[in-house]
Amino acid sequence: MNKLTRRLSGVIPPVVIARHEDGTLDSASYRRNLERLIDAKVHGLFILGSSGEGAFVTDSERLQILRETADVVAGRLPVLVGCIETQTAKVIEAVKVAEDNGADAVVVTAPFYALGGEAQVEQHFRLIHAATSLPVYAYDIPVCVQAKLGADMLIRLGQEGVLAGVKDSSGDDVEFRFLAQKNEAAGHPLLLFTGHEVVVDGAYLSGADGSVPGLANVDPDAYVRQWDAYQAGDWETVRAEQNRLADLMLIASQATSVTGFGAGVGSFKVALRLLGVFESATMPDPVPQLTPEEVDAIRVVLVAAGLLE
Amino acid sequence: MNKLTRRLSGVIPPVVIARHEDGTLDSASYRRNLERLIDAKVHGLFILGSSGEGAFVTDSERLQILRETADVVAGRLPVLVGCIETQTAKVIEAVKVAEDNGADAVVVTAPFYALGGEAQVEQHFRLIHAATSLPVYAYDIPVCVQAKLGADMLIRLGQEGVLAGVKDSSGDDVEFRFLAQKNEAAGHPLLLFTGHEVVVDGAYLSGADGSVPGLANVDPDAYVRQWDAYQAGDWETVRAEQNRLADLMLIASQATSVTGFGAGVGSFKVALRLLGVFESATMPDPVPQLTPEEVDAIRVVLVAAGLLE
Amino acid sequence: MNKLTRRLSGVIPPVVIARHEDGTLDSASYRRNLERLIDAKVHGLFILGSSGEGAFVTDSERLQILRETADVVAGRLPVLVGCIETQTAKVIEAVKVAEDNGADAVVVTAPFYALGGEAQVEQHFRLIHAATSLPVYAYDIPVCVQAKLGADMLIRLGQEGVLAGVKDSSGDDVEFRFLAQKNEAAGHPLLLFTGHEVVVDGAYLSGADGSVPGLANVDPDAYVRQWDAYQAGDWETVRAEQNRLADLMLIASQATSVTGFGAGVGSFKVALRLLGVFESATMPDPVPQLTPEEVDAIRVVLVAAGLLE
Amino acid sequence: MNKLTRRLSGVIPPVVIARHEDGTLDSASYRRNLERLIDAKVHGLFILGSSGEGAFVTDSERLQILRETADVVAGRLPVLVGCIETQTAKVIEAVKVAEDNGADAVVVTAPFYALGGEAQVEQHFRLIHAATSLPVYAYDIPVCVQAKLGADMLIRLGQEGVLAGVKDSSGDDVEFRFLAQKNEAAGHPLLLFTGHEVVVDGAYLSGADGSVPGLANVDPDAYVRQWDAYQAGDWETVRAEQNRLADLMLIASQATSVTGFGAGVGSFKVALRLLGVFESATMPDPVPQLTPEEVDAIRVVLVAAGLLE
Repeated sequence: MNKLTRRLSGVIPPVVIARHEDGTLDSASYRRNLERLIDAKVHGLFILGSSGEGAFVTDSERLQILRETADVVAGRLPVLVGCIETQTAKVIEAVKVAEDNGADAVVVTAPFYALGGEAQVEQHFRLIHAATSLPVYAYDIPVCVQAKLGADMLIRLGQEGVLAGVKDSSGDDVEFRFLAQKNEAAGHPLLLFTGHEVVVDGAYLSGADGSVPGLANVDPDAYVRQWDAYQAGDWETVRAEQNRLADLMLIASQATSVTGFGAGVGSFKVALRLLGVFESATMPDPVPQLTPEEVDAIRVVLVAAGLLE
Repeated sequence: MNKLTRRLSGVIPPVVIARHEDGTLDSASYRRNLERLIDAKVHGLFILGSSGEGAFVTDSERLQILRETADVVAGRLPVLVGCIETQTAKVIEAVKVAEDNGADAVVVTAPFYALGGEAQVEQHFRLIHAATSLPVYAYDIPVCVQAKLGADMLIRLGQEGVLAGVKDSSGDDVEFRFLAQKNEAAGHPLLLFTGHEVVVDGAYLSGADGSVPGLANVDPDAYVRQWDAYQAGDWETVRAEQNRLADLMLIASQATSVTGFGAGVGSFKVALRLLGVFESATMPDPVPQLTPEEVDAIRVVLVAAGLLE
Repeated sequence: MNKLTRRLSGVIPPVVIARHEDGTLDSASYRRNLERLIDAKVHGLFILGSSGEGAFVTDSERLQILRETADVVAGRLPVLVGCIETQTAKVIEAVKVAEDNGADAVVVTAPFYALGGEAQVEQHFRLIHAATSLPVYAYDIPVCVQAKLGADMLIRLGQEGVLAGVKDSSGDDVEFRFLAQKNEAAGHPLLLFTGHEVVVDGAYLSGADGSVPGLANVDPDAYVRQWDAYQAGDWETVRAEQNRLADLMLIASQATSVTGFGAGVGSFKVALRLLGVFESATMPDPVPQLTPEEVDAIRVVLVAAGLLE
Repeated sequence: MNKLTRRLSGVIPPVVIARHEDGTLDSASYRRNLERLIDAKVHGLFILGSSGEGAFVTDSERLQILRETADVVAGRLPVLVGCIETQTAKVIEAVKVAEDNGADAVVVTAPFYALGGEAQVEQHFRLIHAATSLPVYAYDIPVCVQAKLGADMLIRLGQEGVLAGVKDSSGDDVEFRFLAQKNEAAGHPLLLFTGHEVVVDGAYLSGADGSVPGLANVDPDAYVRQWDAYQAGDWETVRAEQNRLADLMLIASQATSVTGFGAGVGSFKVALRLLGVFESATMPDPVPQLTPEEVDAIRVVLVAAGLLE
């Protein structure tokens, strides 16, 4: 039985990848992180997304990650799989690999590298849905693919059963509110997840069904506490947890030697190494590791957050 | 006594400008709107900002708006004045006119048209502060000026007394949360106002001192109710008012003949005309009025919101 | 008689502004530069554009620059005047001041700060044309105003007599070629000037009627030699002059302390000071002067170009 | 012997892909186009780049295209192969497939989807060079990958033997001129090719070693004539051929139903079908074919250019 026949909601961390110093996959560290997340009672896992090196992995790495995840998770919670490829035929190939290796749903961006307007984006999602029996989530991440997914298109595809939901990493909270309002008015055809780390509370106010915060790799318990408070209508706790997590997210601002993915995911890996979960903070080529000074600065933030002594 | 010696907070509508069909200022309509806002117990007024046609007015129009506002308000609540000019010397000229005509504070963007990096932006604010005795608010509106104001710079200028606060229209809610966190840690040197209409609730969760929503021209009472609920810690009401206002904000999505300012402020003017506050919805050159079909669509939204029968 | 009843063509430097150390206008230096340009036999002058601090000057500075230019030029060559203001009514006020103070034509950008799409841009140009008897040139500078002027609109406005020409600072040489081709097919209603410094030769190949290179403040003779070679069909000389000027343009790459306007126009002012034309390289607020190290690096480039010993 | 031990120069069309109506590769049409290009005496071929559907092909399609190209070309001219993948490890896999299947050089963009600054881009090129014995060309195409390759980095990598050349599709002709000047000053370590269709003449003035114009699929003879005139120093012919080709390039402006890749490459495929080279103008998913009205408009342009009766 597919776990997604149950309505998905809650905290779904985008799992970061563990690598040895030589760049190869570090299975033990990766499994340790998965178990830690499951222990924290997160509600699902999102692998091979942007934080999960979906744009970096080779085909064999992709396969290994899929199989190890399925092996560790063993049906304990749903696994969403990012299929980050430039255009439709390549995405469909990745979707089929995911389908054959334990995915409960796939998460797909707009086509990128070559752009062509919203009609092509819509056709892209339709073709992918037609090629798989898995639920398809739209991944709205304009900073990576240079296209924002329109609310009306998303809801139309939700109503037609093409899309099961949206992972919103657009940073456009106005559009997210409109999307949530329109989705509600349409009978909630889409499950809506925010990719925020720092204003998850605002997304919950807007009616999000859950969150996919990269920072949950570092402190999954806090995001689960925040979710539970949201379910209980205890907004002051939702807000207080968020304020604490916003301070913790400053780990991603300590890097000055690198920007973007290398700073954000790089800081998560450093934190996991400092916390004893990862053996190494090695990044995939061509991304450098953070410097010792940056690691020290991250340690200070972790100590301030009470995660490290 | 300057009203801003009291700590400013709450709902501060950016007042839209009334024009006759021939484009000249419509004093009676403008005054009617001011009185309506004051009756609704808003906490301040922001004139000559982006919604207030600060980039459109001639010198004589600017003067007339300043004087009429001062005349109507008569000290009943603080008046913040936008000084929207490209570079430092021109801004300072506008600031002096504001200072001489009843302004309680000025609101100033980064320099634009010619760009030069953050050091120049900081110097710009320092020179403006040095040229006036009024509190200076930084207006963060990258969509208009192509520069985002950095949190560290803003707080440094707050601590030095150069800036009194920030009007955030960046749409970057992650940075707003970080700004609010850092501002709090620094002893709250800056008053922080969000320019959102649709996720004001999220900004309040982040710790905003108030809001400057253009939509408050249309429904000031709802934003005041939302503020009062925020002060009372009643988050469900904050959220419910926001959901209703998000639906009302769809008036700005009814325009297809025009985009940007013409659609947003244009829809506010149409609503004010339909509500009987404005005589006309005339826009400043070169912006067209909305079409009759668009006006009808706005009417439907107003009726659904219970503002019109 | 308006000099622009003759068909304008050739090299039209955008004249940089001279300021004393205290920031006030330096009349003697400015006049010295004008005479130097006229001696070099440039074909027109463009004042108060982007390089000419059109976005920085106060009203009184604008008036002073207009009057001094008219006084020095005394009809010896046409003077085009930039009217850099955000929206229509403000531009028209600047146009009238130009018209009353010796302008032979005005140069006007798309409206900026508040954006609204091409129909508004077209209406903007129409309203400005209706308000003046001077020829109106469209100034295509998307980096400053966030809008690219479309070729079809420009040619339509040229055919209707609304626009006399285009100053193209878009950097989009593909669109410039299409514009030139379409303009030719339409009977050459528009005079087309490139704002390039470094690929003026390519613009001449595309059929430009002339150039407006900021670097002509530093070496006007070379641009005039290049123009003469173009008129003679001597493309190898056109190209050789361009290669030499491309090397000279590296003065604008020596700044690391500042970017954009401050680096480009800043380097022109430094060169004019080193060449003995300007008393000071002072920039308008909030732009800093270049550092002594940067000045030294510019000196090296000038020596290499044979302009300094 | 690798054909690229000879210094590469001249016209190197980016070969478009032929597909049957059902989307599968159309081998006969593709081979017909290759033979037509070789007959026209182009100087090399660039396959699997942006126009060559490098971002669309599955692994098996990639292999088939490589093998058919090698089979048809049979060493008659050099074949450059685009390896369009998001990040280093994936690019290297594509490079090895190219290396094993007849490539004479590979063409590689900056990493995309996840961005990280110039140091990562440089490391990316270094790692790819280390992984192959083939010459590596940098593909500068910021519109697709959101990063512009800096001239100083490119020349440094050229001097170290990491890069053999650059295919410039940046549209930034100022930077291309600076790159050409600096490359010349450094002893011409890089071969520089422009991706322009419409201002190839300007790129030749700047010193380009050749061109990679998509439009050469439609009219290879004209680009070869233009190249020969460039070699002979006959600039008036260079320019006249360019003007004619600029008019022909209007085939890419006839599409209104689609933008970007679908309009540009779509118009090339339609032209090839109308010229009898391709059986169908089918585009890869999710890109639609042009409409019958757009096909008619393209036919008119082809007739005007004398390519069709």
